[in-house]
Amino acid sequence: MQRFGWVAKARPELLQKYVDLHAAAWPAVLARNTDCNLQNYSIFLKTLPDGQHYLFSYVEYTGEDFQADMQRMAADPEIQRWWAECKPCLETVEDLPPGDVWATMEEVFYQA
Amino acid sequence: MQRFGWVAKARPELLQKYVDLHAAAWPAVLARNTDCNLQNYSIFLKTLPDGQHYLFSYVEYTGEDFQADMQRMAADPEIQRWWAECKPCLETVEDLPPGDVWATMEEVFYQA
Repeated sequence: MQRFGWVAKARPELLQKYVDLHAAAWPAVLARNTDCNLQNYSIFLKTLPDGQHYLFSYVEYTGEDFQADMQRMAADPEIQRWWAECKPCLETVEDLPPGDVWATMEEVFYQA
Repeated sequence: MQRFGWVAKARPELLQKYVDLHAAAWPAVLARNTDCNLQNYSIFLKTLPDGQHYLFSYVEYTGEDFQADMQRMAADPEIQRWWAECKPCLETVEDLPPGDVWATMEEVFYQA
C-alpha cells in the first residue's frame, strides 16, 4: 500500500465552491476513486500565515500500478467533468506538468 | 474513529534534526502512540512558496477519549524527553495554548 500527501492552494474566490463540491462529491467520482484503488482519502483545509488557503490531501493507494490507474481515471468522462469544476478552484504551489494541480509532499514519518 | 490533520512549521536550522529524529523515532515513543490509540500516523514535509518548511500530520485516533489519552501521553517521561527534542524544532502557524505546536486543519472531504 502506498500513501500520498499532496498540497495545493485554493483561489480565494473559489474556495467555497471547492468546499461545497467536496461536501457533496458526485457518486460517479467516489465510485471511480474506489475502482482506481484509492481509499481512506481525506482533504484538509488550512489558511496559513501568508493568508493563502491551502488544501492537503492524504490518500492510500492499494493497487499494483498507480500510473495506469490514474490514466484510467483521467480517461473517464465523469472524472473529466468533475475536474472541470474542481481544478479551476485550485492553484499549484510549484511548477507541475500541465493539468496537474497537486504537489507531492515528502513523507518523513510513518507509524502503522 | 477520528482522523486529524495538523500543521506546523520547522525552524530552518532545525529541520534536519526533526527529520532525523523521526527517521529513527524512539521505540518508547512508538509504543506510547499505539498505547494511546493513535494509528496510521504520517508526517509529510513540504517547502511552500513562502520559503517556509511546513510539516503536515495525518493520524487516526481509535480510542474513546482523545483528551484523556493525550493527557496520559503528556504525563509519560519518555514522551516528555522526546518532545524536548522535537518541539524546539517547530514553530506554530497560529496562536495556540502554551506547549502546543500543531494547528488543526479542517477536514473538507473524506472517502473511506
